[in-house]
Amino acid sequence: MLPREEAIAKIKDAIEKTYGKRGKMVIEQNFAAVDAALAHLHEVAVPAAATSTRHRPPIVSEDAPEFVKRVSAVMLANKGDLLPVSAFPVDGTWPTATTQWEKRNIALEIPLWDPKVCIQCNQCAFVCPHAAIRAKVYDAGQLEAAPEGFLATDYKAGEFKGMKYTLQVAPEDCTGCNLCVTICPAKDRTNPRRKAINMAPQHEHRERERQNYAFFLDLPEIDRTLVTRLDTKGSQFLQPLFEYSGACAGCGETPYIKLLTQLFGDRLLVSNATGCSSIYGGNLPTTPYARNRDGRGPAWSNSLFEDNAEFGFGFRLAVDAHARLAGELLGRLGGRIGDDLVTALLHADQGDEAGLAAQRERVAALKARLAGIDDADARRLELVADYLVKKSVWLVGGDGWAYDIGFGGLDHVLAQHRDVNILVLDTEVYSNTGGQASKATPLGAAAKFAMAGKEVGKKDLGLLAMSYGHVYVARVAFGSKYNQTVEAIREAESYHGPSLVIAYSHCIAHGYDLQFGVDQQKLAVDSGIWPLYRFDPRRVAAGEPPLKLDAGPAKVPVIDYMKNEARFRMVEKQNPQRFRHLMAEAQRDVTRRVAIYEQLSHLTVPTTAPEAGAAAGEKPAEK
Amino acid sequence: MLPREEAIAKIKDAIEKTYGKRGKMVIEQNFAAVDAALAHLHEVAVPAAATSTRHRPPIVSEDAPEFVKRVSAVMLANKGDLLPVSAFPVDGTWPTATTQWEKRNIALEIPLWDPKVCIQCNQCAFVCPHAAIRAKVYDAGQLEAAPEGFLATDYKAGEFKGMKYTLQVAPEDCTGCNLCVTICPAKDRTNPRRKAINMAPQHEHRERERQNYAFFLDLPEIDRTLVTRLDTKGSQFLQPLFEYSGACAGCGETPYIKLLTQLFGDRLLVSNATGCSSIYGGNLPTTPYARNRDGRGPAWSNSLFEDNAEFGFGFRLAVDAHARLAGELLGRLGGRIGDDLVTALLHADQGDEAGLAAQRERVAALKARLAGIDDADARRLELVADYLVKKSVWLVGGDGWAYDIGFGGLDHVLAQHRDVNILVLDTEVYSNTGGQASKATPLGAAAKFAMAGKEVGKKDLGLLAMSYGHVYVARVAFGSKYNQTVEAIREAESYHGPSLVIAYSHCIAHGYDLQFGVDQQKLAVDSGIWPLYRFDPRRVAAGEPPLKLDAGPAKVPVIDYMKNEARFRMVEKQNPQRFRHLMAEAQRDVTRRVAIYEQLSHLTVPTTAPEAGAAAGEKPAEK
Repeated sequence: MLPREEAIAKIKDAIEKTYGKRGKMVIEQNFAAVDAALAHLHEVAVPAAATSTRHRPPIVSEDAPEFVKRVSAVMLANKGDLLPVSAFPVDGTWPTATTQWEKRNIALEIPLWDPKVCIQCNQCAFVCPHAAIRAKVYDAGQLEAAPEGFLATDYKAGEFKGMKYTLQVAPEDCTGCNLCVTICPAKDRTNPRRKAINMAPQHEHRERERQNYAFFLDLPEIDRTLVTRLDTKGSQFLQPLFEYSGACAGCGETPYIKLLTQLFGDRLLVSNATGCSSIYGGNLPTTPYARNRDGRGPAWSNSLFEDNAEFGFGFRLAVDAHARLAGELLGRLGGRIGDDLVTALLHADQGDEAGLAAQRERVAALKARLAGIDDADARRLELVADYLVKKSVWLVGGDGWAYDIGFGGLDHVLAQHRDVNILVLDTEVYSNTGGQASKATPLGAAAKFAMAGKEVGKKDLGLLAMSYGHVYVARVAFGSKYNQTVEAIREAESYHGPSLVIAYSHCIAHGYDLQFGVDQQKLAVDSGIWPLYRFDPRRVAAGEPPLKLDAGPAKVPVIDYMKNEARFRMVEKQNPQRFRHLMAEAQRDVTRRVAIYEQLSHLTVPTTAPEAGAAAGEKPAEK
Repeated sequence: MLPREEAIAKIKDAIEKTYGKRGKMVIEQNFAAVDAALAHLHEVAVPAAATSTRHRPPIVSEDAPEFVKRVSAVMLANKGDLLPVSAFPVDGTWPTATTQWEKRNIALEIPLWDPKVCIQCNQCAFVCPHAAIRAKVYDAGQLEAAPEGFLATDYKAGEFKGMKYTLQVAPEDCTGCNLCVTICPAKDRTNPRRKAINMAPQHEHRERERQNYAFFLDLPEIDRTLVTRLDTKGSQFLQPLFEYSGACAGCGETPYIKLLTQLFGDRLLVSNATGCSSIYGGNLPTTPYARNRDGRGPAWSNSLFEDNAEFGFGFRLAVDAHARLAGELLGRLGGRIGDDLVTALLHADQGDEAGLAAQRERVAALKARLAGIDDADARRLELVADYLVKKSVWLVGGDGWAYDIGFGGLDHVLAQHRDVNILVLDTEVYSNTGGQASKATPLGAAAKFAMAGKEVGKKDLGLLAMSYGHVYVARVAFGSKYNQTVEAIREAESYHGPSLVIAYSHCIAHGYDLQFGVDQQKLAVDSGIWPLYRFDPRRVAAGEPPLKLDAGPAKVPVIDYMKNEARFRMVEKQNPQRFRHLMAEAQRDVTRRVAIYEQLSHLTVPTTAPEAGAAAGEKPAEK
């Protein structure tokens, strides 16, 4: 045992040594923690026998499904070794929608809603990484059975006039990241320090809010065909089918994934590259991908780092083959099903939710009629009939996948003219494995094994994709322009060809409190380091430039963005001169890239080809 | 046995079935061959005993080195199975410069030189795929020992005034492709059908030209430091160290490789991707990479399709590590070697041949002094001293490597800031495996497994590389502008960072007589389908746009280029309407790309960064 003062000095030495590069503030925070611990030392008297009357709650609720009780709960209790192999699904699948049974209760504080201040913008629901704050509109009559203290207010805007509106927190699933409160634009006029949502201690409000959340979940989901304005706000009235994942508090990736599940619902197929999103996307024993009230939800699978684009491309080929087979069988059975129904099924316009709903009804009618047809083709058609409803195939992963390890395959898939959608959750670093540099890492950033700051600029994945001409490409940052994100993702999905959406994702690896992630997204766009654009090949037919820039010229220098993140400041700490040099290089690089985009945004593509063969060329083969 | 007429009809049916898609001309040529064979049928009387007095010549010359006689000759005689394992080098290496001993004599006609008509442009030597026609300048005194019939003339231009000039064919190595004659720009005024080189039957001239060629090879090689104008002409006075390969007659790739060996000589290290260039580059039992009179030549190796960029990157790292070690050892031994020599060795300017020659002399002096130093460091320095002479590392391969299978690694190497040079021999198809489409295949071209014509445009590898900003990028087509090719390759090599040269390579897979390959290169550039450019990051420092276009605006429609090649015409044959549609799409695609390059060529990069931190940005981290 060391003498007290010597031991404390050695602890502080170790702190300086370990965290020195992260700056003075981090060291002082660690010192303060040590000092506070010392100041609060007190003796705990150990009684002779246990005296507590508290009992450990059950691992999962009594309401959980059989599989969760039999398998997930045992694993959550750290007794997974006791499970026999026969307890697991034989085909490698895993039941979805199970994170709801793993109540983590990790937030010290949770947001509480003040309906009087709220402007009903739904931005808080949009940014929540864990789908732990949600909005609903519903008929007033539903409130009759509401528990005491359940809050509701009149919905203000036109489309659902006369209905009620509630914003509800999931108190046991919230991680307390504070993002929702930080971005809330509504201020209480009577108290400028309060907003429409405000943090409060979880333990004081947990029981009531748990009741409220249960009631909220039981409220009817909105009819998808009624949400005709699919923007930031409208999208948040659609049920998220990705919830309570194990992603970090404040994660900048998960809002994009959640949005996919809201916009495309149970039609969504996700092939997920290795990386954070494959971990929190399938972090057994529970799964965040969920199901709607019909018991349907997204299909999700993870293959390898290096083949995810090809893997998802296979989803598309399989879906197309099934749909083609269904079409052929419809043609063969024709009259026995009813020509009108067959024609309607084969020529359905599924361009919006109304069209999709109508097709689902036709497929239900088809199945009913098939049941009465005694024919092998009818049995086969029953197996593939669901593929007559349009599917939405998404290839999802991080920059380590898309820019580096899986890039060869991604590029190969882009070069094919198939209807796949690609979402790159760009944290600009290998986040999941601890922060190694990727080709998406920006100039000047420090990363593991590249601590001196990266000297080469960020790879321009979007420009390569644009150069093909037939690829829809967008670069988005929800925190800068929520609606542009929603619009880009909807356009990408509607385009009948490959689509690439590169999504700015703030991340703990960037080194700052992520409740300010949205502010950093704004600065990234305002400085030009993250240009927002949408390149839509469909504009060519209208004689317009396919590239549309969605943000104005740069308003601030890149250093105003970079100085807020430790990944850049660490370089300054080590070598201020090198930092200044890299910052100047980064600014030059950004200025150059912005100029390229500006030029390209004015470039139209000829819609008519010049007269072929008109000019007199040499004819070597005829010599 | 079938009746004669029925058999012939069946043969012709088979021809139509096999070659129908290749067009009427091909079928008729085959029919004509059948008819000609029938017309020349005659009985050969077999004597009772052998009466011939001809003897089979030895497989290889008596002058061949021991390894060639002991191993290569046995394999060439198709008796390789008789060789024991112990006959082969134990370390996987293979002696170079051995194609010279495999006299194939496959040309029916060879080019003969007419000094009176020749303008000494050396273009024929440049385009020769097999280094089988060469130019030399030398002192007149050398001619004293010349064999009868050896041709020489006065050298016309300034730099070697007073010397003699000879253009000499290698009669037994020429493949008779006719490229040299087709491109010869010098016309005989007295006979418009004759040029400065003209084809003549090989068997009539073989013996004399063999003597001439042997004498020509023995003439002294020019002092490399004297060739100061390293353009099309000057480069051809440097000894090619890549000769008589097994590449196709008329190959469009090998002139680029030959040029590398001329410009960089024995300092060249090649990592070769799988593909044609790995086959003809190491087509055992003989090897086309050769050695100069000092016994030195390029080092060459082939790894895999998918890792060649990384493999060559490893060459660079190893060379740099050896050079660094040599530098450290020089520093340690310092005074014992002589400070002046050490300083000169460490700070040598090796930017041109004079500088390189001086450094070679220093290294020789160093070795002489090291021999007298009894120290372990001296022994180690002897092992790495040669690395003090600058090495030239080239990553070579085709489009199947660079655009497809090895692209992920290629891109990763481009993203590092190391001095590697990349030469892509772009035939726009997997030539070696029989013509499958790659991402380099142009819109509208038919390829194996894509017979209906490619619908997606050629991938823009150069644009991706340019978007990094720190990569030297050039697109070349020697047949359109010889000097631009030489300049681009020299600039690429001189740039201290990654360089990418994408080289148009006409190919038998394109489907026309390759003697017109150079005409097609011109049309590719003139139609805009193959833009010539050089993107040099060094121009930024001078305030100039880094991208320089090396050809004017498109002069002819792309169809004037495409109609000469069967890969495009096959689509027309199958489906004229689709062909017209694809040609229109191809023209649109080219027009769009040309416009992008035109814009980029005016884009300068700011050389000074804006005042950092000047504008008032938000400071989220301080909230």
